[in-house]
Amino acid sequence: MYRTENDLLGDMQIPAKAYYGIQTQRAIDNFHISGVKLYQFPEFIKGLAYVKWAAAETNFQLGLLDEKLKNAIVEAAKEVISEKFNLEFPIDMIQGGAGTSTNMNINEVLANRALELMGYQKGEYQYCSPNDHVNLSQSTNDAYPTAIRIAGVNSNMQLIGHLKDLIDSFRKKGEEFKSVLKMGRTQLQDAVPMTLGQEFEAFAVTLEEEIDRLTQNSNLFLETNMGATAIGTGLNAAPGYAKLCAENLAKVTGLAIVSAPNLIEATPDTGAYVIYSSALKRMAIKISKICNDLRLLSSGPRCGLNEINLPPMQPGSSIMPGKVNPVIPEVMNQVCFRVIGNDLTVTMAAEAGQLQLNVMEPVLTYAIMESMQLLTNGMDTLRQKCIDGITANEEHCREMVLHSIGIVTALNPYIGYKNSTKIAKEALETGKSVYNLVLEHNILSKEQIDDILNPENMLAPKKS
Amino acid sequence: MYRTENDLLGDMQIPAKAYYGIQTQRAIDNFHISGVKLYQFPEFIKGLAYVKWAAAETNFQLGLLDEKLKNAIVEAAKEVISEKFNLEFPIDMIQGGAGTSTNMNINEVLANRALELMGYQKGEYQYCSPNDHVNLSQSTNDAYPTAIRIAGVNSNMQLIGHLKDLIDSFRKKGEEFKSVLKMGRTQLQDAVPMTLGQEFEAFAVTLEEEIDRLTQNSNLFLETNMGATAIGTGLNAAPGYAKLCAENLAKVTGLAIVSAPNLIEATPDTGAYVIYSSALKRMAIKISKICNDLRLLSSGPRCGLNEINLPPMQPGSSIMPGKVNPVIPEVMNQVCFRVIGNDLTVTMAAEAGQLQLNVMEPVLTYAIMESMQLLTNGMDTLRQKCIDGITANEEHCREMVLHSIGIVTALNPYIGYKNSTKIAKEALETGKSVYNLVLEHNILSKEQIDDILNPENMLAPKKS
Amino acid sequence: MYRTENDLLGDMQIPAKAYYGIQTQRAIDNFHISGVKLYQFPEFIKGLAYVKWAAAETNFQLGLLDEKLKNAIVEAAKEVISEKFNLEFPIDMIQGGAGTSTNMNINEVLANRALELMGYQKGEYQYCSPNDHVNLSQSTNDAYPTAIRIAGVNSNMQLIGHLKDLIDSFRKKGEEFKSVLKMGRTQLQDAVPMTLGQEFEAFAVTLEEEIDRLTQNSNLFLETNMGATAIGTGLNAAPGYAKLCAENLAKVTGLAIVSAPNLIEATPDTGAYVIYSSALKRMAIKISKICNDLRLLSSGPRCGLNEINLPPMQPGSSIMPGKVNPVIPEVMNQVCFRVIGNDLTVTMAAEAGQLQLNVMEPVLTYAIMESMQLLTNGMDTLRQKCIDGITANEEHCREMVLHSIGIVTALNPYIGYKNSTKIAKEALETGKSVYNLVLEHNILSKEQIDDILNPENMLAPKKS
Amino acid sequence: MYRTENDLLGDMQIPAKAYYGIQTQRAIDNFHISGVKLYQFPEFIKGLAYVKWAAAETNFQLGLLDEKLKNAIVEAAKEVISEKFNLEFPIDMIQGGAGTSTNMNINEVLANRALELMGYQKGEYQYCSPNDHVNLSQSTNDAYPTAIRIAGVNSNMQLIGHLKDLIDSFRKKGEEFKSVLKMGRTQLQDAVPMTLGQEFEAFAVTLEEEIDRLTQNSNLFLETNMGATAIGTGLNAAPGYAKLCAENLAKVTGLAIVSAPNLIEATPDTGAYVIYSSALKRMAIKISKICNDLRLLSSGPRCGLNEINLPPMQPGSSIMPGKVNPVIPEVMNQVCFRVIGNDLTVTMAAEAGQLQLNVMEPVLTYAIMESMQLLTNGMDTLRQKCIDGITANEEHCREMVLHSIGIVTALNPYIGYKNSTKIAKEALETGKSVYNLVLEHNILSKEQIDDILNPENMLAPKKS
Repeated sequence: MYRTENDLLGDMQIPAKAYYGIQTQRAIDNFHISGVKLYQFPEFIKGLAYVKWAAAETNFQLGLLDEKLKNAIVEAAKEVISEKFNLEFPIDMIQGGAGTSTNMNINEVLANRALELMGYQKGEYQYCSPNDHVNLSQSTNDAYPTAIRIAGVNSNMQLIGHLKDLIDSFRKKGEEFKSVLKMGRTQLQDAVPMTLGQEFEAFAVTLEEEIDRLTQNSNLFLETNMGATAIGTGLNAAPGYAKLCAENLAKVTGLAIVSAPNLIEATPDTGAYVIYSSALKRMAIKISKICNDLRLLSSGPRCGLNEINLPPMQPGSSIMPGKVNPVIPEVMNQVCFRVIGNDLTVTMAAEAGQLQLNVMEPVLTYAIMESMQLLTNGMDTLRQKCIDGITANEEHCREMVLHSIGIVTALNPYIGYKNSTKIAKEALETGKSVYNLVLEHNILSKEQIDDILNPENMLAPKKS
Repeated sequence: MYRTENDLLGDMQIPAKAYYGIQTQRAIDNFHISGVKLYQFPEFIKGLAYVKWAAAETNFQLGLLDEKLKNAIVEAAKEVISEKFNLEFPIDMIQGGAGTSTNMNINEVLANRALELMGYQKGEYQYCSPNDHVNLSQSTNDAYPTAIRIAGVNSNMQLIGHLKDLIDSFRKKGEEFKSVLKMGRTQLQDAVPMTLGQEFEAFAVTLEEEIDRLTQNSNLFLETNMGATAIGTGLNAAPGYAKLCAENLAKVTGLAIVSAPNLIEATPDTGAYVIYSSALKRMAIKISKICNDLRLLSSGPRCGLNEINLPPMQPGSSIMPGKVNPVIPEVMNQVCFRVIGNDLTVTMAAEAGQLQLNVMEPVLTYAIMESMQLLTNGMDTLRQKCIDGITANEEHCREMVLHSIGIVTALNPYIGYKNSTKIAKEALETGKSVYNLVLEHNILSKEQIDDILNPENMLAPKKS
Repeated sequence: MYRTENDLLGDMQIPAKAYYGIQTQRAIDNFHISGVKLYQFPEFIKGLAYVKWAAAETNFQLGLLDEKLKNAIVEAAKEVISEKFNLEFPIDMIQGGAGTSTNMNINEVLANRALELMGYQKGEYQYCSPNDHVNLSQSTNDAYPTAIRIAGVNSNMQLIGHLKDLIDSFRKKGEEFKSVLKMGRTQLQDAVPMTLGQEFEAFAVTLEEEIDRLTQNSNLFLETNMGATAIGTGLNAAPGYAKLCAENLAKVTGLAIVSAPNLIEATPDTGAYVIYSSALKRMAIKISKICNDLRLLSSGPRCGLNEINLPPMQPGSSIMPGKVNPVIPEVMNQVCFRVIGNDLTVTMAAEAGQLQLNVMEPVLTYAIMESMQLLTNGMDTLRQKCIDGITANEEHCREMVLHSIGIVTALNPYIGYKNSTKIAKEALETGKSVYNLVLEHNILSKEQIDDILNPENMLAPKKS
Repeated sequence: MYRTENDLLGDMQIPAKAYYGIQTQRAIDNFHISGVKLYQFPEFIKGLAYVKWAAAETNFQLGLLDEKLKNAIVEAAKEVISEKFNLEFPIDMIQGGAGTSTNMNINEVLANRALELMGYQKGEYQYCSPNDHVNLSQSTNDAYPTAIRIAGVNSNMQLIGHLKDLIDSFRKKGEEFKSVLKMGRTQLQDAVPMTLGQEFEAFAVTLEEEIDRLTQNSNLFLETNMGATAIGTGLNAAPGYAKLCAENLAKVTGLAIVSAPNLIEATPDTGAYVIYSSALKRMAIKISKICNDLRLLSSGPRCGLNEINLPPMQPGSSIMPGKVNPVIPEVMNQVCFRVIGNDLTVTMAAEAGQLQLNVMEPVLTYAIMESMQLLTNGMDTLRQKCIDGITANEEHCREMVLHSIGIVTALNPYIGYKNSTKIAKEALETGKSVYNLVLEHNILSKEQIDDILNPENMLAPKKS
């Protein structure tokens, strides 16, 4: 998803002569905050470049930009999209000014690169100005959120790819474990039998639902407020600009982008971020629950449930020899807690919008993009280093079912809830098995018992 | 939405002879927690009754229940749906046992009422048993969440009704204020002109989006896990029961209810609650932002923005005579903060699901239902006691625009960003108006200036 | 702590002729929000009455109120403190106006009752006015938060009483289980031996720490801003009033109340609420963790850890006969999730303060008081219906230790981490016991082994 | 506080031959999660080294380690404390295994460096083993949290240093603005007069309170569980080790560290983190409120309150010339939202502790340390780039007071609340000044009016 600091260490070199200019430099100087930089989120940079590309095309079509200048800006934008200039975006992800610094960063880089492409020197802004040409017909308040939204849609598609891999991994284990009989549990108490395959297939199914949720909610990013300019009234944008620009955006990105129906509403609105972050949170809650389950099921080896074995990844303890810990589900739980924390940051930032703008968008964007990156990294780790290598303790699982009291539930339709309760109580007090007690009390014939209390018959509805 | 304690004070009488039975009584005794009772949420009680009605029909169709018994249970359920027995549900909304107490409450009430309808005495459970007949083919783990979901969909439709009223109220004000020229603001700094009508119409538009979000996310409640019984394997339910029961549920409720594709997944899954609660949060964030704006716009009367007047509801201060405060937006902000807090409770509860069940559903349900009730009450209050009575200080709004520096933005396309900046700076330093400075410096002709700097021309894109 | 709606149903009667007046009535009409009323929090009402009592004394001492009037107001305040007039406070806990409605409610009740006591008719405000006499030298902005703070300190002392009972309960079980040997677990994996008594004593110890935290943080409530009047400048309060009023407050409440050093700072400051709510959250986190542990330790009965038995409170399932569920820890977990959610409401409300006041105090107060009530009810329930009745499965606990691999850790000092790891691995693979393997490999003499691998020797540091 | 990635880019070079070993390498391979590395938090690394130093001294004193080995380990630890080996700690801050990887990282680095110092080759663990010597008498479960706690105390002291600088900055402005008369506001409505100096002094005072809160809560970190080993029973630690090790820790760190009274309780307990994170949140809430105020007070320049000017840091808009935005308070608000989000991550992680350990400590630590770093960076930025350069619009502030209605409050003691209300109403309706109306109605003599309505007389309690 995005390159972490470490990945960049090898090739990171601040270019001798930067393409960014004085406004970017000022933002670099002003904001020493998180130490996390824009260049760590290439999709965001690409989103900015797409915006400038579409704006240049639109300005050209409306006769506001001549062809040569348009071509140079577009060419420069394409180069940025190819990730050639990522290191030209060294500004902090947490910044004041509602993204103005980020918008000026791309304006300056594109202006200077366009100047070069046209044969001028960097800085000869009379031929191509960051403000008057690259930013023409735009404001930070429409360009910046549109870039975020494009980055959101594209990052989401990548996230879903990694999610699908994880789902496949669970599904395969569901298939592999389809005949491993085990005890189902509700409220951590023994309930009724199921298979381990059913349990893992359910993990796959529950995550599969997230594909729709993520897609549906990320689709809200497809509305752009380009043409809004400062506050949505479109001051300084030409009539028709908004609609045409949305069309050009759709063309250059390949996404189904449309113009927001009311630009004054759309400009300060952060509703799409809020609900998309909620969708990430929902996924995190589900994954955290699954990891909790994996840790429960693999608890032991001798004093726990011990139904499954997670692949050992590292010595589990600096003091307890031979201890193997569920380190991968543990790391994933922590990822989920951070995603949930980030969702609160998004909530606070969204609520803080005032009048015609929400100035807190930078931290909101940062939180969402970090969550997507953490989930992506975490899901890959979970799949490769844990799920794919899980094995089942089939014998132990089956034994627990056979000795359980929960199978008494299957007697309900035959002897009623009240009588079944008596059997269960007696089993618990005496340590005897339900099977033997039913036999002992002559409640049913041996054939009936064998049929009714056969755990394999309890895995799905059956004819009485 | 739901009846608050106060509404009930008039007619509340614990019936001489209760219809609920010993298990409900035990739950009443066990859980003295929140003091908020099930009977305060009639939609939830109705949801429970619908579930039992549909189950009885299904059991009858499958030959598991005779017609007389089925008819009695159905008749009793209908009476409960008519709210005749609300006070029979006096158990605490926060309870252990994953809703078993609530499920037994409805089982007992229906069994006893059905007994009466059949001419028996309450308690003659041999003729109609809470467990063996009313709860037949069910478990708390399918009946309880299905009831919540039906309540969720129905309550959501009511909520949307109140939301629509609020939207209409904002829209009318948008129309009323359509020619009130005022200054738009970004980052609390003067930006460019707009109308107060545009601002209020944007409030309407942004809330209108919530109708779709609420509907879309509440539709996730339409999947039922009836037939799952204890853990989703359908033990003790007849083959075909799940699908048939969903059809019956759809029939009796009039809702497009379907059977969940995987009952083992569906049983512990609280994803629908999580994302629906997120949708409530999103709406709360938007409403809180709007109320913040209303309080800003009405700040003053002499030392604030003073663009609008909120209807005075009560003396504002016990010490400052004549002070009028924005008490209604203030109360709404607080409602929103509580909804956001409730969403965290939902998050924690959802994450705490384990293995084949989420035992925290009661608090999760309580939090969501409380949020819906608070938002409903709050929106009605906001509309009736605030929005409908707002008036504009038109003269003051216009004067601020005319004296503003922000209108210099309109000069950009004519004299460039850099020159416009100089004018703005000089205006700020000298106190002179932008209009006069442009004239003074002979930058444009008077006709041009009159056209470009006419605020009315800045409200939408225009031809240069 | 506070009376829930249900408790009030028996004796609730809106008095034929109310003591509250027109301003309270207006607030009742304006705020139909939560349905939770001020009268459900008697400590809060008492706090208000203490404030008015102290203010009246101070005004009298400063010559601003004559003795007769003072005596009447004080007498009326004492009656309110005796809870005789609780039902005169039927206003919603969520209200706009920063508590002005609540302040006027007490002003009106005291004025009317004082009038009666002096032989006048209710409403003859020329003799005793809610604003000019009862509220003399005060503003809502000092009277209201001071009342909350007094209520906070007193409620906290009650809360600590209930907490101490719970601690005692855990401690007794710690003593009772002191010789129950069991396996300790880290990361849900078998670790090294301990006793069940050590585990329960640790629960007592960890909760004991909360007494200090709650006390320390509630002590921040002991600073009053009385004398601040509207914004902390003390306008309309006499010189010396602030300090004298704090002294009077200390006298009438018996609490170590002092005047805040800077009243302008103190007036909008909600820092004490924030950190006290955090202390409640910390306690909730600890209790939730303990309840999670109780549910883990009692999991089973046959397919779980099954180390302890929680007292059965109610049939655990409407479908699974004999199932007993940990309903009390479950209800406590849910209480904790709600307390954590309330803490977020407090956070949002505190952050929303603006300039010289925080207008969100009502919801902030409501959230904290609800949390205190929920924790109080929950702790009592947990203690009485769960902890006090817990029994241990001593044999099963001991057997798990003897068959565990974790005891290999004790070999570290004798044979090193690397060799111990080999033994552990072999034990896991072969199913053999650590004891036998050490013997088999002739690593140590039998005497040494018997000493080192005796679990009782592993419960505390020992001489090698 | 800690070095951000960018600071490290210049000198970052993974050493040709690492001092860390195979277990660290495995952790590096296993955890590609956040991209944020341990070396970005030097205080944490120092904390780890202090722990190993103190443990080595203790082991030596107890005769468990010979002097040569002890000296080598101690010397290596001192080198690590000098930050010479920071880059040897390249493992991800989010990791599974409850910190085992981090503990093994320091064990390996110290072992290898000690080997070198003793003249051996790296890896000759027979002479100095990461597990058997460096980790002697320890477990991750005591060493890791102790290191965090030392880092917490030391980082907190640094944080307080930066906080004090910010307080000084506000205090200076309070002094500078002490005679700038301005309108106080409650609920965003004009209230009564104050000075801008009083307002800024109140900012200083409210932040000053945080010094105590931070100190008091970070002091909870001073309890160590060294000697607990795996689960607090002290298995494999010698009698007396725990107490002696705490004394040694106190000696080497200079901090008042003591041994926790109950090591079984102390080992899984994360209460100190929770309440310290809450203290950070409380500070964030206060700073966010202050920044909200600064943005309100500087709103305008012509259509807002315009009482103060923030130093312009960068062009405010890419489209609106001359616009200057409050970018520094804005960035600080965002820092605060992230700190509040991090507190939720801490809450979730703390609640997830199970039985004898809390395995989520890594993310919990990461969240707290990030919050401290963000606040440190943010406060420095706020002070240097904003507060220090604020100027007041004195004339405008005074004019607003003189034209305000709020000064009518001062009439209360002379003409009563009811009459004052009438004057206020008439002023609002007619636009006349309160002063003139009082004169006009012959309510008081001109001398009286001049005295009572002189705003300078309203800044503190006065004799009537």
